[in-house]
Amino acid sequence: MKGTLFTPLPPDLPEELFDTLAAAGDVRIERIVSRGHASPGDFWYDLDRHEFVLLVRGRAGIAIEGRAETVVLAPGDYLIIEAHVRHRVEWTDPKNDTIWLAVHYSAETGGE
Amino acid sequence: MKGTLFTPLPPDLPEELFDTLAAAGDVRIERIVSRGHASPGDFWYDLDRHEFVLLVRGRAGIAIEGRAETVVLAPGDYLIIEAHVRHRVEWTDPKNDTIWLAVHYSAETGGE
Repeated sequence: MKGTLFTPLPPDLPEELFDTLAAAGDVRIERIVSRGHASPGDFWYDLDRHEFVLLVRGRAGIAIEGRAETVVLAPGDYLIIEAHVRHRVEWTDPKNDTIWLAVHYSAETGGE
Repeated sequence: MKGTLFTPLPPDLPEELFDTLAAAGDVRIERIVSRGHASPGDFWYDLDRHEFVLLVRGRAGIAIEGRAETVVLAPGDYLIIEAHVRHRVEWTDPKNDTIWLAVHYSAETGGE
């Protein structure tokens, strides 16, 4: 099955857009679209699975708990976030849509 | 861990380049770089796992056994190839590097 990450997007995007593209067993592959969105200031993602996230278009800053510096991602950059490493989206490009590919995969059988 | 799909590449690339970026359990995430490469004419990939492949840069044509038309992929296009669906890379951009992100994931617990 063929698809594209660059489908036309609605003019208004009050919330980030999450689309599951494929899923099997412990794996889920999703597209995320952010339009200047960021995580709420007091919010941390704390996920049960590892996450591999590729920034395809746009720009973003990810904060990781315990690290002083925000990780800045440009197109082609990826980040591997191990299960239960708390993180948040500090900012995304305010002018252009930021498009991500995220792969969530099981931690049960051991990490990278 | 942060990385980029756009690392500098060697001037000569006699074979396609495969780099594992992350792996856990039944999942492997890899970067593939093709420089005009294609599968040999009599070769078919026949994989035990599902494959999600995203074309990040460049252009390519994928043949799928039993389908008359080659699937043409441009940046942002993805293809989900179920386990044991035989396929081959018909062609890749002869002038520019084609960069892929491939996710191999288990078919044992059922497909999408």
